[in-house]
Amino acid sequence: MLYFSCDYAEGCHPKVLEALTNTNMLSTPGYGEDEFCDSAKEKIKKAINCPDADIYFLVGGTQTNQTVIDSMLSNYDGVVAAATGHVAVHEAGAIEYSGHKVITLPGHAGKIDALELRQMLVDHYADESAEHMVNPGMVYISYPTEYGTLYSKAELEAISSICNKYQIPLFIDGARLAYGLAAAEDVTLSDIAKLSDVFYIGGTKVGALFGEAIVFTKNNTPKHMITQIKQHGALLAKGRLLGIQFDTLFTDGLYMKMGEHAVACANSIRATLREKGYQLYMDNPTNQIFVVMDNKELEKLSKELSYGFWEKYDATHTVIRIATSWATSDAAVEGLKKIL
Amino acid sequence: MLYFSCDYAEGCHPKVLEALTNTNMLSTPGYGEDEFCDSAKEKIKKAINCPDADIYFLVGGTQTNQTVIDSMLSNYDGVVAAATGHVAVHEAGAIEYSGHKVITLPGHAGKIDALELRQMLVDHYADESAEHMVNPGMVYISYPTEYGTLYSKAELEAISSICNKYQIPLFIDGARLAYGLAAAEDVTLSDIAKLSDVFYIGGTKVGALFGEAIVFTKNNTPKHMITQIKQHGALLAKGRLLGIQFDTLFTDGLYMKMGEHAVACANSIRATLREKGYQLYMDNPTNQIFVVMDNKELEKLSKELSYGFWEKYDATHTVIRIATSWATSDAAVEGLKKIL
Amino acid sequence: MLYFSCDYAEGCHPKVLEALTNTNMLSTPGYGEDEFCDSAKEKIKKAINCPDADIYFLVGGTQTNQTVIDSMLSNYDGVVAAATGHVAVHEAGAIEYSGHKVITLPGHAGKIDALELRQMLVDHYADESAEHMVNPGMVYISYPTEYGTLYSKAELEAISSICNKYQIPLFIDGARLAYGLAAAEDVTLSDIAKLSDVFYIGGTKVGALFGEAIVFTKNNTPKHMITQIKQHGALLAKGRLLGIQFDTLFTDGLYMKMGEHAVACANSIRATLREKGYQLYMDNPTNQIFVVMDNKELEKLSKELSYGFWEKYDATHTVIRIATSWATSDAAVEGLKKIL
Amino acid sequence: MLYFSCDYAEGCHPKVLEALTNTNMLSTPGYGEDEFCDSAKEKIKKAINCPDADIYFLVGGTQTNQTVIDSMLSNYDGVVAAATGHVAVHEAGAIEYSGHKVITLPGHAGKIDALELRQMLVDHYADESAEHMVNPGMVYISYPTEYGTLYSKAELEAISSICNKYQIPLFIDGARLAYGLAAAEDVTLSDIAKLSDVFYIGGTKVGALFGEAIVFTKNNTPKHMITQIKQHGALLAKGRLLGIQFDTLFTDGLYMKMGEHAVACANSIRATLREKGYQLYMDNPTNQIFVVMDNKELEKLSKELSYGFWEKYDATHTVIRIATSWATSDAAVEGLKKIL
Repeated sequence: MLYFSCDYAEGCHPKVLEALTNTNMLSTPGYGEDEFCDSAKEKIKKAINCPDADIYFLVGGTQTNQTVIDSMLSNYDGVVAAATGHVAVHEAGAIEYSGHKVITLPGHAGKIDALELRQMLVDHYADESAEHMVNPGMVYISYPTEYGTLYSKAELEAISSICNKYQIPLFIDGARLAYGLAAAEDVTLSDIAKLSDVFYIGGTKVGALFGEAIVFTKNNTPKHMITQIKQHGALLAKGRLLGIQFDTLFTDGLYMKMGEHAVACANSIRATLREKGYQLYMDNPTNQIFVVMDNKELEKLSKELSYGFWEKYDATHTVIRIATSWATSDAAVEGLKKIL
Repeated sequence: MLYFSCDYAEGCHPKVLEALTNTNMLSTPGYGEDEFCDSAKEKIKKAINCPDADIYFLVGGTQTNQTVIDSMLSNYDGVVAAATGHVAVHEAGAIEYSGHKVITLPGHAGKIDALELRQMLVDHYADESAEHMVNPGMVYISYPTEYGTLYSKAELEAISSICNKYQIPLFIDGARLAYGLAAAEDVTLSDIAKLSDVFYIGGTKVGALFGEAIVFTKNNTPKHMITQIKQHGALLAKGRLLGIQFDTLFTDGLYMKMGEHAVACANSIRATLREKGYQLYMDNPTNQIFVVMDNKELEKLSKELSYGFWEKYDATHTVIRIATSWATSDAAVEGLKKIL
Repeated sequence: MLYFSCDYAEGCHPKVLEALTNTNMLSTPGYGEDEFCDSAKEKIKKAINCPDADIYFLVGGTQTNQTVIDSMLSNYDGVVAAATGHVAVHEAGAIEYSGHKVITLPGHAGKIDALELRQMLVDHYADESAEHMVNPGMVYISYPTEYGTLYSKAELEAISSICNKYQIPLFIDGARLAYGLAAAEDVTLSDIAKLSDVFYIGGTKVGALFGEAIVFTKNNTPKHMITQIKQHGALLAKGRLLGIQFDTLFTDGLYMKMGEHAVACANSIRATLREKGYQLYMDNPTNQIFVVMDNKELEKLSKELSYGFWEKYDATHTVIRIATSWATSDAAVEGLKKIL
Repeated sequence: MLYFSCDYAEGCHPKVLEALTNTNMLSTPGYGEDEFCDSAKEKIKKAINCPDADIYFLVGGTQTNQTVIDSMLSNYDGVVAAATGHVAVHEAGAIEYSGHKVITLPGHAGKIDALELRQMLVDHYADESAEHMVNPGMVYISYPTEYGTLYSKAELEAISSICNKYQIPLFIDGARLAYGLAAAEDVTLSDIAKLSDVFYIGGTKVGALFGEAIVFTKNNTPKHMITQIKQHGALLAKGRLLGIQFDTLFTDGLYMKMGEHAVACANSIRATLREKGYQLYMDNPTNQIFVVMDNKELEKLSKELSYGFWEKYDATHTVIRIATSWATSDAAVEGLKKIL
């Protein structure tokens, strides 16, 4: 079976496993107060070119979004996001559970539009009943988006500039950050750090067993952050597991290399799909490929291919997702090409 | 100054004030355990033709919506509402504060569409990732809506039937219930009780100083309801004030009569507006009138008329709201007609 | 029947009712943006000798405590209170519902001890695992306490000084403030304002139909306070009802006079109780009297007296509460004395 | 340095690491829908002798307590716990953050007393103001307790029987369950399952990298449990990591063997401590040893020993915690004995 259904189907990159194995019986303090976490933080600060960054390691994405958003917002604040954003749809109400409304803007292939964001803010503050409404207190975007699309540098700058003007933090969800940066035309890791107020570097989908690195970039860490993480049930006892993994991911450019590998695999598959006349549902450059498939063909493919169901297209077609990752082998790519 | 800006600008109906005055120095138990509350409940049960109803009196609308929704939903549930619904827009996030997402459907002149509701539910339960999404656990509609429009009996039956099928309670926000029923073609108070699982009878906007009567119609009161009300800060110490007011509202049909008065005033104003060629922004039959006004004319009117700003229409026009109520005098109506 | 069971058994002081009646048909803006609220705020600022105070009117006590505490605390904060404090016991978990722990100190006849408070804070910050614990973010005391006892000025100063040192706001719950000040040896309304960071002036139990005036005394109003009040379901549509009532309470010293009346009644009853050899359960100077009663005698008294059950004392005795108020008549006091 | 400061200082048992390594590059579905989770659940059901058990794997202890408690309680419920219980003290308010009060009973060497529990429940339901108070909706105990002490079977039966009578679920926090069972006189894993309504088997402190297995024992899983876990940010994407670990822990009795090893180490150290005349602060039979140390001697020991600070004993003495675990080597035990 060719496994392309998601980018979190395997364990971790062999180097990460090696590091966990080598350190397994060492005794260290808990809760992230160990030397591996310190080392990982230093390496990340260098990689993002932001020496003042303040970094926290959490286990998973929804947990990270909930903790970041709830710790940065006041009671009266909501978070602005695309209607298709992960926080708006697939987190089981984790944001609302923490008391905050997700204020949605239209999603354009997963992205929000800077002009629509500005208009929404202008309208909100001009509204005579603004005091009776949730205050837009943060902007959340994902890079890449849930549809595998990317903001250009100019688009990020426009959104960032609006956020600055309204004194609203910009939060970038980087669950698949490596896959975005590898495909980006003009956006670097350093740009992400510069243009956001807080972002997270996804490990779960890029080579770690689990783990997301929250980066506060503007000396803007919420007070008592460890207490807030603990309160959200998000403080890992053996915090060094996160430190060891991120230390490895940020040694010798491994994180970026894994991103490049997955994108190269995806591009190679995309080329074949185009060659063979398949319709791409979404034209995006990252590790997720959305294809419109004839249902009969799909039934046949299912015997050899594990893919992700995305949505019904019409009576006889289905949109599927093919996801590559750090773990995708050349053999699997070739295997997939053969059966297409 | 002619005051038409809202329907909660005055105190209470003289009969309500009289009842409060007559009972003022009586000593009664607190928290609604008094004879006036008992009497009011009996009268309401008769008026709604639902002898098994269970009734609670709260102070205000947002408080009522928050308490009803939070007490009836489980953690994993959200409430489905029109994107223009009060709970979705003008309650400062009170629903999210209580942990629940407001899942929005398009508003059609303030109303949700039964087919769109059904489709949303079908899609939700068919979605492979439904477990990662908020469960639609209740449907909220307002009668009349925030735009003064009304559901027909057939529309209510369609929504109610979908809710029954999916075992989701239907909650009707009746902040302006009297103004809706007075204008309804085929919907009665008894229909509201029959077709909903829970609804509230608005007093604040219809003759009371304050007060909303929550009615659980299907032997479905949440457990420990008094404790839940208290927990939401919504248990009035001198509960009898609510009992006395609702007892008066439901004596000799006063509640319905006030509704009829306000609607008659509104219709009279509407007739004049149409006669004089004004454009109605929204064609609705209840106590709120939405008019597209030329900005220059509006400036002049402002000197004699207190109206509600609704929204900008275009560069030279504004949508305003003219609201009548139980307190609207014939003199005010005539005064308004004169200056139009 | 002689009604002494609580201090919220009647409506409102005749002057309050008169003011509500006189203004009943006036049209005013909603949500507290009316002239009566403005006037009441000015009178309160003078009465408390704090021209910079910022004042908000809410409906009830639990609602007020929840809104003040939640709006002033951050996520990681809890509120320190006596184990017998209203927020710790009788608010149905309203504080925890808003996400905050009530951190309890021993209650000494309802009061916390300044030294115990200091020790708790010292211990907390010295604790190596403080980051894993709720941060003590506010101190809540009630004046008078739930047991009718009072802090002396020196005691208030000691607590206030500790709060200042630890940069923790001191919140004084004044549900029965007038009854406390009338009995105080050396504490004035102005002291309450000076020594607290926020307090509330209780109206529900002192002559209003309902209403509590929150006073932020140190230019420390939480941001977007109206939005926060709305979010807690605590924004009264006809806000002027609160303004009219507090304006009356703070005209010609009515609020203090009502306090004095209730305390005089209580003292007169206490004298008779002592004379006749009854055991007072709690020696306190305010409007609540706690008496140890023989169960057989109590049974007899019950036919003519409505009292508050407080707790079982032993197999043959019960502690009852006799509460006087602004509404207690001389006739009732004499009637009670006769049957004792 | 001899490392005895806690029982989560190392990675995982070599067999667990081996299993993770062997499965690392396998592709499996996410979120616990893999064969390893299935297998682990079957093995646990056998080990606890409860074929109907329903099992969920989460990452950490606070997360587990928060998710179990919040998913089983209604809004109006609180959880009863010892004042020294983990949920009451060291979870940064995670329970209150989810809206629930922790109702405390006195801790007796970490344990609650069945009679005190019964009295509390009797008093609560007899209280006339019970409706204004948080409802006791669950009992939480830890086995072993935070002080390393154990309930006897009779004590567990007494608590369980009270919970049954009041229809309140009994939740047993088994963060260190193996260390408790290894030292128990008459309590087995099967007893824990039989006497509780829900409990969790701690992996983080007993040989896993991380992981806690929640066991619902009475066909009482809360509805939409996966959604609730997700909402709490507690659903691990690569759920198989938990399945693989627990599958290993419950193969060939590894979980119990690790417990026995740690307790044997602790007993051996305890014997030496007694021999050498040290004062044990708490007489308990599990893997945590609490010793009263002379400060001067402690200073010396600190050079070679990493211990846990527990609390100040008096001006010249300190209580320290020495914790053994599955990872404690014989060499370390001998090393410790030598320097005592």
